[in-house]
Amino acid sequence: VAASMVQAPRTGTLDFGSRNSIADVKGVSVGHATLGDGWVQTGVTVVRPHPGDLYREPLPAASVVLNGFGKTIGLVQLDELGLLESPIALTNTFAVGTMATAMIRHAIAANPSIGRRSATLNPVVAECNDGWLNDLQAFAIHERHYAMAFDAATADFAQGSVGAGRGMSCFELKGGIGSASRVSSDGENVVGTLVLANFGKLSQLTLCGVPLGRALADSATASEAEHGSIIVVLATDAALEHRQLRRLGLRAAAGIARTGSNFGHGSGDIVITFSTAERLARGARPPNARRTTRDETLDPLFDAAAEATEQGIVNALFAAETVEGYAGHVRRAIAERVPDWRARLARAEGP
Amino acid sequence: VAASMVQAPRTGTLDFGSRNSIADVKGVSVGHATLGDGWVQTGVTVVRPHPGDLYREPLPAASVVLNGFGKTIGLVQLDELGLLESPIALTNTFAVGTMATAMIRHAIAANPSIGRRSATLNPVVAECNDGWLNDLQAFAIHERHYAMAFDAATADFAQGSVGAGRGMSCFELKGGIGSASRVSSDGENVVGTLVLANFGKLSQLTLCGVPLGRALADSATASEAEHGSIIVVLATDAALEHRQLRRLGLRAAAGIARTGSNFGHGSGDIVITFSTAERLARGARPPNARRTTRDETLDPLFDAAAEATEQGIVNALFAAETVEGYAGHVRRAIAERVPDWRARLARAEGP
Amino acid sequence: VAASMVQAPRTGTLDFGSRNSIADVKGVSVGHATLGDGWVQTGVTVVRPHPGDLYREPLPAASVVLNGFGKTIGLVQLDELGLLESPIALTNTFAVGTMATAMIRHAIAANPSIGRRSATLNPVVAECNDGWLNDLQAFAIHERHYAMAFDAATADFAQGSVGAGRGMSCFELKGGIGSASRVSSDGENVVGTLVLANFGKLSQLTLCGVPLGRALADSATASEAEHGSIIVVLATDAALEHRQLRRLGLRAAAGIARTGSNFGHGSGDIVITFSTAERLARGARPPNARRTTRDETLDPLFDAAAEATEQGIVNALFAAETVEGYAGHVRRAIAERVPDWRARLARAEGP
Amino acid sequence: VAASMVQAPRTGTLDFGSRNSIADVKGVSVGHATLGDGWVQTGVTVVRPHPGDLYREPLPAASVVLNGFGKTIGLVQLDELGLLESPIALTNTFAVGTMATAMIRHAIAANPSIGRRSATLNPVVAECNDGWLNDLQAFAIHERHYAMAFDAATADFAQGSVGAGRGMSCFELKGGIGSASRVSSDGENVVGTLVLANFGKLSQLTLCGVPLGRALADSATASEAEHGSIIVVLATDAALEHRQLRRLGLRAAAGIARTGSNFGHGSGDIVITFSTAERLARGARPPNARRTTRDETLDPLFDAAAEATEQGIVNALFAAETVEGYAGHVRRAIAERVPDWRARLARAEGP
Repeated sequence: VAASMVQAPRTGTLDFGSRNSIADVKGVSVGHATLGDGWVQTGVTVVRPHPGDLYREPLPAASVVLNGFGKTIGLVQLDELGLLESPIALTNTFAVGTMATAMIRHAIAANPSIGRRSATLNPVVAECNDGWLNDLQAFAIHERHYAMAFDAATADFAQGSVGAGRGMSCFELKGGIGSASRVSSDGENVVGTLVLANFGKLSQLTLCGVPLGRALADSATASEAEHGSIIVVLATDAALEHRQLRRLGLRAAAGIARTGSNFGHGSGDIVITFSTAERLARGARPPNARRTTRDETLDPLFDAAAEATEQGIVNALFAAETVEGYAGHVRRAIAERVPDWRARLARAEGP
Repeated sequence: VAASMVQAPRTGTLDFGSRNSIADVKGVSVGHATLGDGWVQTGVTVVRPHPGDLYREPLPAASVVLNGFGKTIGLVQLDELGLLESPIALTNTFAVGTMATAMIRHAIAANPSIGRRSATLNPVVAECNDGWLNDLQAFAIHERHYAMAFDAATADFAQGSVGAGRGMSCFELKGGIGSASRVSSDGENVVGTLVLANFGKLSQLTLCGVPLGRALADSATASEAEHGSIIVVLATDAALEHRQLRRLGLRAAAGIARTGSNFGHGSGDIVITFSTAERLARGARPPNARRTTRDETLDPLFDAAAEATEQGIVNALFAAETVEGYAGHVRRAIAERVPDWRARLARAEGP
Repeated sequence: VAASMVQAPRTGTLDFGSRNSIADVKGVSVGHATLGDGWVQTGVTVVRPHPGDLYREPLPAASVVLNGFGKTIGLVQLDELGLLESPIALTNTFAVGTMATAMIRHAIAANPSIGRRSATLNPVVAECNDGWLNDLQAFAIHERHYAMAFDAATADFAQGSVGAGRGMSCFELKGGIGSASRVSSDGENVVGTLVLANFGKLSQLTLCGVPLGRALADSATASEAEHGSIIVVLATDAALEHRQLRRLGLRAAAGIARTGSNFGHGSGDIVITFSTAERLARGARPPNARRTTRDETLDPLFDAAAEATEQGIVNALFAAETVEGYAGHVRRAIAERVPDWRARLARAEGP
Repeated sequence: VAASMVQAPRTGTLDFGSRNSIADVKGVSVGHATLGDGWVQTGVTVVRPHPGDLYREPLPAASVVLNGFGKTIGLVQLDELGLLESPIALTNTFAVGTMATAMIRHAIAANPSIGRRSATLNPVVAECNDGWLNDLQAFAIHERHYAMAFDAATADFAQGSVGAGRGMSCFELKGGIGSASRVSSDGENVVGTLVLANFGKLSQLTLCGVPLGRALADSATASEAEHGSIIVVLATDAALEHRQLRRLGLRAAAGIARTGSNFGHGSGDIVITFSTAERLARGARPPNARRTTRDETLDPLFDAAAEATEQGIVNALFAAETVEGYAGHVRRAIAERVPDWRARLARAEGP
């Protein structure tokens, strides 16, 4: 994986953190449980926004639904309270219910009063449809896979055909998990993204502004109808309130658009954004004051969010290995399907 | 149950249908699976919007989130597409994931191509927290309870401490499932509601405009903090598009408010609205035309929605039997807790 | 006016401030410019959220659109930035443009760099349709009326048929400007409302839970179709962020509903909420921290908002004097139209 | 203008209509009133959605607020009712109130009962801040300019530094009015856009995927802070309901993003969308049925909306002539500021 990451083309101009991943936002870690066996090509990815217990120490959070053809769980309460009180689990469309239940049990194990003497948990689960490579009807994801992914969380996580990304497709190429970071141009904050990329038609594929997909699709059969999705998890260490996190999350749209997508009808394009600037404490007395950020200073964060999202998608494409799965379907890695991608990009950049 | 229903005071002035329930909207039926055993006092209620297969023949639908402290599943896609493609399942907070999975399996059994050659299902599940009477940590709801409730669906369904309403509390009295209908004043349409009533502080309780709760709460201990919820399912036979269904759903707020609630912070107050005027057909060629309703004629429907919602809540209170459950907690029926309720109301109505 | 205020029935149970008006939120003042001459019965009311210059020191603010049949100006930016940077002007439907221009000129007079070296102003203007008593086509409101109302602002302002309320009708009675306050039950904060009440059918009128309008409408001609509106300005001294101010604003819906309205199709029911806890400073360095309020403590504020809104509407009805205007139309004060209102209410409250 | 239009680079791959403008949507016309005199460089542009009277025959419409730092008028009611009942006027930030009043008077002249015996008008006005080239404090726009622009409406309208676009800047180049159209790939419908382009930093400028601005900004002084805006008016002849028009409008975000913008904090990025498929008739009996479009067939329209928006912005840049205005400020046409733009693009496209 590391090898393929190296070769992914770089989007934009902003600096990135030492890992060029969401883990450049201090405290964020990611874990996978990957199931790759014959017709079962699926998994679970868990984003842990901080190393502690989110139920006890929730974070300010918000969501943006760009196109709501998706089955996320937890966004209604997340936006009403502006709080994320669980890790974020990503998985396939048929496994969201199982993940929600697993997350509740997991939280109870650490907080035995949940649902008895203290409030219930609002688990946040998002999904994409991996049914082309994965036999959804196998219902292969079980509750235990949540803990596996949770326990595996690390700042140095794999990308591509892993975890929830195992069976995902992007621009009719192999997609999956991608991550990136960008430092705001004022140097004050970092924005990190983790995407579950499962969207797009090949004819639309655009890399660094170059519409690679047009030529590719010309020489191939007609593009498939889009029935994918993209989930963008966007983290920042800036101190933002709910309204500002929504504003930030919208900028993921720019990153997605630059890879060629017009937010297809059948694609659940959903952004979940959180700030790690301050852990809130359940049940504690109100803080006398909280750090804030002026809206006038948000542009560097907006630019970082857009660019990190675009890079995250590109990284997903370049990290993903070819996978064969359900009914013998094969989804090829971009470097295998477009071996001369480097020449095609170089030509566009000129001498 | 029928006996207690008779005595429920009547709210408002509009006529109602023959059943004074959501089943007065032709084709709608409701089924329960009730678990009442010791510390387990919970269940599942399924609203079937028409007798057919919702996946094959979805209905126009919309949701309104009045206060989003709740864990519904399915609203994002329901509002993006303006479609309800599953029955609506109501249950306790910890069982939403299990219900979602059960609904997917149930739909696959009838439509084996789901998730393989045809689109996935967007199950719609809503919940309230019955943790005072029910041991949530027992995780007593299993997938089979969905089919039990679905199969039990009938136009002549029970109300009160049944199905998802088994363990619910309302104004610190026993709450649960209530239903009502109202005919629009122009006689052209009917609006039916089914509520899962689990909200409110006793001190707020208002019946037919009479603030009964003030006196009751004076003589009792301090009101508990509200951590309930109310789900309102609102059906109509009028031909409404998504935008109009949202407008209609908002009027449930008036009905809730008139029972005394101010939409408490901890209450997930959520409305799901659908129209039975026309079944849409998945995959079929577009209809050349669809029936529509002019916004200028919506007021009679708005009045019906508000009044039916208020009546539905009142019916839940009066249909509900006393239940003892988790940790020996007891929630009393209104007629037991306020035996002179009739006199209190009569006095207010004057000679 | 003071005389009629005394007799207005009291809604709810919470304490109110010394003025029982929005001016109980410290710093808030209100001014009117009233035009009452023959067919011209209209005016302007200005709410000044603090005595300073809002452009230089904006306040956290939010809006809630319950029913958007209205022509407010300024809400898009108010909600994007969560800021109120102008007073709030209320007037008739045809005068919103004139008010917006007047407010820009007024702000430039105090801040000559506006639109040149510094940002433009986002004026906030809301309206109701007073076309039954006022000849809208006279376009009687001019820019100077803004300054007149602004300069007249005081904590001891008149209510009823004054300012923007001059030509308004409410429940087919004379309506207009009403104001009230409530202290949160924890004693920590005050919520004040100012309403421009121009909505409702007589048959719906409900006072303190008593459906007075039913009997009145029976003995009269058929109710008119509703084409009114209500604007609710809701102020609090609690330190709330934008998301919380939206939550607070929604509770005005409960107050409106309890007066009998179901948010009629033709009624622009719009709430604008602001917090006076902290004046923000344009262009200043970011504050290191801002005071905040925990959502768990919002219920007392929610209750205060609902009750103050209901009382504000009742106060509008009882403060308003009979007005004759356009085409000889007459709208009667409630005490004139329903002289025995006191007996009707008393009967309902019982011995 | 025609000359400069010829040279504008072509974005995307879809066919366009005979005019490559919003007037390819049959019935749509556009008129300008342009004020260019010394420090006054501003104007009014009116989009007439059909040649008739919009008050009598409104159209289905919707709006999408991508970034709400803007002072539009009319969107609240437009989205509540899903109706556009006036032409759309574009102008500068200080003139929105004047335009609203002018539009009301204009509608009354044709419909003398407005505000007396029939409903008021909801005028729709959008704006950008042209304060760099235009002395906003001159308040140079008067009511008569609305009628001038309205009367000048034609299918063969000018673009660039005309009408509301006279004083606008885009990517620190001369911007203004641009228009384009795209035919959906299924050949069934056309989507047309008219933009008022006043946004972007030079360093971000991207043409046809080529990040031209990076090099330009390197060799220049630091980019200015963004305080612009973009208004996108999006028309289609497809029969879409309000929810679908919102979905369509969101796709303008992709077009904007591809020109380099990340929806800057200070930019009011607002989309207004309407369908000309069917004129509705005020006060008429409800149609028995209306034509509809299945969501499954929307992707070709989405692609057309994104591409036409991008092209509209490019056309605005290439049609706009250099303008000198307020305080001697000069904004140069792209061909003047980047004379070798053609070579820069060609290099990127390779041999």
